[in-house]
Amino acid sequence: MDIASFLGIFVGISLIFLAVKENIFLFLSLKSAMITFGGTFAATFINFPLAQVAKVLKVAGKVFFAKPLNPYDTIELIVKLAEKARKEGFLALEAEVAGIKDDFIRRGIQSVIDGVSRDVLKDTLEKQLDFLRERHALGQDIFVSMGTYAPAFGMAGTLIGLVIMLYNLDDPKKVGPGMALAIITTLYGVLASYLFFLPIAGKLKIRSEEECIVKEVALEGILALHAGENPRQIRNTLYAYLAPRMRSLERKKLMPLRKVAKEKKKK
Amino acid sequence: MDIASFLGIFVGISLIFLAVKENIFLFLSLKSAMITFGGTFAATFINFPLAQVAKVLKVAGKVFFAKPLNPYDTIELIVKLAEKARKEGFLALEAEVAGIKDDFIRRGIQSVIDGVSRDVLKDTLEKQLDFLRERHALGQDIFVSMGTYAPAFGMAGTLIGLVIMLYNLDDPKKVGPGMALAIITTLYGVLASYLFFLPIAGKLKIRSEEECIVKEVALEGILALHAGENPRQIRNTLYAYLAPRMRSLERKKLMPLRKVAKEKKKK
Amino acid sequence: MDIASFLGIFVGISLIFLAVKENIFLFLSLKSAMITFGGTFAATFINFPLAQVAKVLKVAGKVFFAKPLNPYDTIELIVKLAEKARKEGFLALEAEVAGIKDDFIRRGIQSVIDGVSRDVLKDTLEKQLDFLRERHALGQDIFVSMGTYAPAFGMAGTLIGLVIMLYNLDDPKKVGPGMALAIITTLYGVLASYLFFLPIAGKLKIRSEEECIVKEVALEGILALHAGENPRQIRNTLYAYLAPRMRSLERKKLMPLRKVAKEKKKK
Amino acid sequence: MDIASFLGIFVGISLIFLAVKENIFLFLSLKSAMITFGGTFAATFINFPLAQVAKVLKVAGKVFFAKPLNPYDTIELIVKLAEKARKEGFLALEAEVAGIKDDFIRRGIQSVIDGVSRDVLKDTLEKQLDFLRERHALGQDIFVSMGTYAPAFGMAGTLIGLVIMLYNLDDPKKVGPGMALAIITTLYGVLASYLFFLPIAGKLKIRSEEECIVKEVALEGILALHAGENPRQIRNTLYAYLAPRMRSLERKKLMPLRKVAKEKKKK
Amino acid sequence: MDIASFLGIFVGISLIFLAVKENIFLFLSLKSAMITFGGTFAATFINFPLAQVAKVLKVAGKVFFAKPLNPYDTIELIVKLAEKARKEGFLALEAEVAGIKDDFIRRGIQSVIDGVSRDVLKDTLEKQLDFLRERHALGQDIFVSMGTYAPAFGMAGTLIGLVIMLYNLDDPKKVGPGMALAIITTLYGVLASYLFFLPIAGKLKIRSEEECIVKEVALEGILALHAGENPRQIRNTLYAYLAPRMRSLERKKLMPLRKVAKEKKKK
Repeated sequence: MDIASFLGIFVGISLIFLAVKENIFLFLSLKSAMITFGGTFAATFINFPLAQVAKVLKVAGKVFFAKPLNPYDTIELIVKLAEKARKEGFLALEAEVAGIKDDFIRRGIQSVIDGVSRDVLKDTLEKQLDFLRERHALGQDIFVSMGTYAPAFGMAGTLIGLVIMLYNLDDPKKVGPGMALAIITTLYGVLASYLFFLPIAGKLKIRSEEECIVKEVALEGILALHAGENPRQIRNTLYAYLAPRMRSLERKKLMPLRKVAKEKKKK
Repeated sequence: MDIASFLGIFVGISLIFLAVKENIFLFLSLKSAMITFGGTFAATFINFPLAQVAKVLKVAGKVFFAKPLNPYDTIELIVKLAEKARKEGFLALEAEVAGIKDDFIRRGIQSVIDGVSRDVLKDTLEKQLDFLRERHALGQDIFVSMGTYAPAFGMAGTLIGLVIMLYNLDDPKKVGPGMALAIITTLYGVLASYLFFLPIAGKLKIRSEEECIVKEVALEGILALHAGENPRQIRNTLYAYLAPRMRSLERKKLMPLRKVAKEKKKK
Repeated sequence: MDIASFLGIFVGISLIFLAVKENIFLFLSLKSAMITFGGTFAATFINFPLAQVAKVLKVAGKVFFAKPLNPYDTIELIVKLAEKARKEGFLALEAEVAGIKDDFIRRGIQSVIDGVSRDVLKDTLEKQLDFLRERHALGQDIFVSMGTYAPAFGMAGTLIGLVIMLYNLDDPKKVGPGMALAIITTLYGVLASYLFFLPIAGKLKIRSEEECIVKEVALEGILALHAGENPRQIRNTLYAYLAPRMRSLERKKLMPLRKVAKEKKKK
Repeated sequence: MDIASFLGIFVGISLIFLAVKENIFLFLSLKSAMITFGGTFAATFINFPLAQVAKVLKVAGKVFFAKPLNPYDTIELIVKLAEKARKEGFLALEAEVAGIKDDFIRRGIQSVIDGVSRDVLKDTLEKQLDFLRERHALGQDIFVSMGTYAPAFGMAGTLIGLVIMLYNLDDPKKVGPGMALAIITTLYGVLASYLFFLPIAGKLKIRSEEECIVKEVALEGILALHAGENPRQIRNTLYAYLAPRMRSLERKKLMPLRKVAKEKKKK
Repeated sequence: MDIASFLGIFVGISLIFLAVKENIFLFLSLKSAMITFGGTFAATFINFPLAQVAKVLKVAGKVFFAKPLNPYDTIELIVKLAEKARKEGFLALEAEVAGIKDDFIRRGIQSVIDGVSRDVLKDTLEKQLDFLRERHALGQDIFVSMGTYAPAFGMAGTLIGLVIMLYNLDDPKKVGPGMALAIITTLYGVLASYLFFLPIAGKLKIRSEEECIVKEVALEGILALHAGENPRQIRNTLYAYLAPRMRSLERKKLMPLRKVAKEKKKK
């Protein structure tokens, strides 16, 4: 679970709550929410296909509940498969394929079993990686668009509130609350955009980069397995490939890598 | 018909109506509409050629009434043609050409009948795809420009309204309605831009990408037909080409694809 | 003459006039114009060389008075030259050169007469096309810059007006007209930018693309003439080259093209 | 000397002065200047190395006092050197090297004397041109950054002024002048950015392009000299290279070019 | 130590303090800080992984306390190693490796000792340089994001303050201080963004470019050492490589370079 995101949202909302405290009830307005979020989702539905917007919630959930990627496990899985392939031949991998959870690796190994040439194998895997990047980019696009639409509809709501208030200027007591209500809509738009939509789009981008690095490591590994390289050599190559990218992944995931690196040093 | 877009516009407008309710008549202003939309269309007419702005309405209609693209039918059409070409020769396709509705495929098949070389065929089809992309881009450009002009003229209208109101400050009763009227123009500009022009530009972009994917599949198919490949092999190749792109198309269109994929698995 | 642009400006200004009507005299302010346009031209003069800003007016006139480009005439001219060259040799073109109005074609034909090689000819013509694009880009740049400067100086003028008004707060009767005057400057900046500078920059871009397409057709034609191709074949090639681009040109210009296309079909 | 820039600044400031006239003293505020320019320079010093910000003033001076580049002199210099080299050999150029003021040409000729190969010569000169472009880009960067920082600190100053004024609301007479003072800071930021920093950045870019064109002409000339080409042929080649770029340089500089072109026509 | 940055921050804050002077206490608001910085850090934590935000402080410190890079020492180190390698062979470098502080050079020399081929060596070093650039870019990204979030949350805080004030309009005495408090939040956001986050992002970019230039020099040097080039020749090549880039580094660091250049001239 991604503690930083949770912490971020929790602290952000807490600080704002604390600053507002006893006035919190002033900031609840159904009408403001209807205009800001109604408008944002409407524009998003016009902009993107239905099926994709539906996926948005699932994608957003990913940010908070996604299991951290473990490149260590990926490397060990490929090394294990390479050992088996070396001893018993590619066809022996058939028994393992069903047990591979990662779609990308399973399909790659299946292609190896099917006996495709190195060029075709490389081409297929790279194309799959490209499509993965495209899909990720679309997900980020939706959140960036929502981050653009939200403040705009927030402002539209404020303009609506101002117009209604201005027509009721006769009663000076109504001016204050009228303007307050009008302003809340912009506040909703700004907070939705800068506390949710845009940071989530940003994290999706980083998660996408992490996933693609692990996939690239897998791609290199499958190609090495296909070339019949020594399994121990494959492990070294993949760690060497991964090592300089380590720092851009989160610390926790990389502990095993460090352990292995240390053990290698001792030898 | 694109239900999501309709739903989007309907929900967006409904929510805003609901929030405004009995005050709705306050927001109707012919003068504001004249300034916002007059200015927007004026700037658009200066910016783009007459013929192209005329096409805009037709293009916008596309977003809501366009038949969903069906890559499945495209593949089956090309497979059918490939079967006939294999049995009876390219010239036998002459009888089929008139019945092909898709311009791109019809011209491609005509070129095959005319006996052009593979290189020329590929070059011609790719150029047509490029021009298609250019035309699509121009359509998006017009809507993006309108999405930029609308808020600007909305703001210009508000400034005009403010000036008139400020010269009539003597009568304090007129201040409120005067400002309200001024503000409505900005509201018109913001809603026109963020609820119509920009989301439509966005959806045109996505529709364009979908159309180009289907055209790319057709291009691959025509080249395979020209090379005299086995029709069954062509179907497999085209499905393989399409499969990873499936997820970026809307679900409904892809059901046939899934059915075929399942049937293939069973065999 | 470009009717759309005239219509655009006429309708845009009319609608705004109509909305303002009897208050129109409120919006005339020499001081506001001095600040907005003085500032804009000053910044433009600092930003761009004198000679280029001088050309700006001429360039802007182009948008409204430019004769529509006729790719049909260009093609027929080259076909006619190719026929003469085929019958009487390249040197016979010498007599025609002076009569060619288009600089690009005249220089190209002159090079053909001078006996340059195909590579040099192609290189020279492509470079000239590149420089044409560069010059066009600079013209667009100037208008985009003016479209950026105008609202900024409009706002500066409003700030100036506000300061003066605020120092004279003693007389509450002066507040309204003072603020009105201040706001007019921003209005000038916004209208100048979004009704003139930016749309003109946009149309210059589209005109530039049209001109470059016609020049590309001419380039292809001159190369074919140089290669001694059959004139009738050259006409076909150039129409084939132009046809898919037809839709991005304005309708009127293309009528001859359609006529020819129809006649070709009949044969 | 660049008259257009001087004219631009003079006219811009004059018009604004005229519009303000007797109120000019209202717009002088040391505190506003301290916040706007203090903040801008502070941010610039954090952003860029000390040595580079120091160069900024020198660079800005360039815009106004730079001698116009004369590609005509450059061409004649290279033709003269080529003539000498042809008659007396490359080593005879040794006597001329010290007298060449242009760093780029001097180093190029020195390399020719040192007997480097054509490939090394070309590579070295092109790299120097690249570094020149990089240095120019950095100078533009600094001005663009200042153009971004200035309005931000102007706004910060206005916020500061508003806060102070709002705490002193008891005295209604202070409200006007307080707000006026607050607004002046934003005015300073906007004028500094749009009348100085951004236009200067723009002109630096254009000057850079001009300088690079002249350097490219010199590069072509030195390579031709190194290849031992006929000096008269070199002159023709360089004029042909320069001619299509003429229009993007300022008129005055090009008079000699036109004269030469005319003389060539007469022959 | 980077004096310019310190000076920049010191002068910037001093000038603003001076302008505010006795009113300084008006600008201290815990609530405003809670909303602006709480929101900014919350959004940053959602956007970027925990480990990376933690590194941010360290990275920011770099701007102020980083030892200036000395390309002179780098060149001399490589020349010294090249001399030893020439006399005693690559294996003799084993004794020196541990003493090399720079990671990049140490790994490169280690690879030379391990006997990798030139292609592998070049490829490995270039990849490391690429990853270095990626890591630097991520650091800049975080600061740019913070520079975007800070003004947004500043504005959100102002909206919150306005709403609370507007509900308490009954007491006209509270209006001034209420609005003042509301405005301070925006001020915090603007200053944090334009005086810290964005300039620091800018300086990180420049520091990154400097570091990469020194690493490129090292890369060239290690390759030359590997090729067994004459050490004196290596020094000349590296100085020639560095010289044109000198001007984009800070003056102080380059004194040794100038000294060497002068000494070379004397000889």
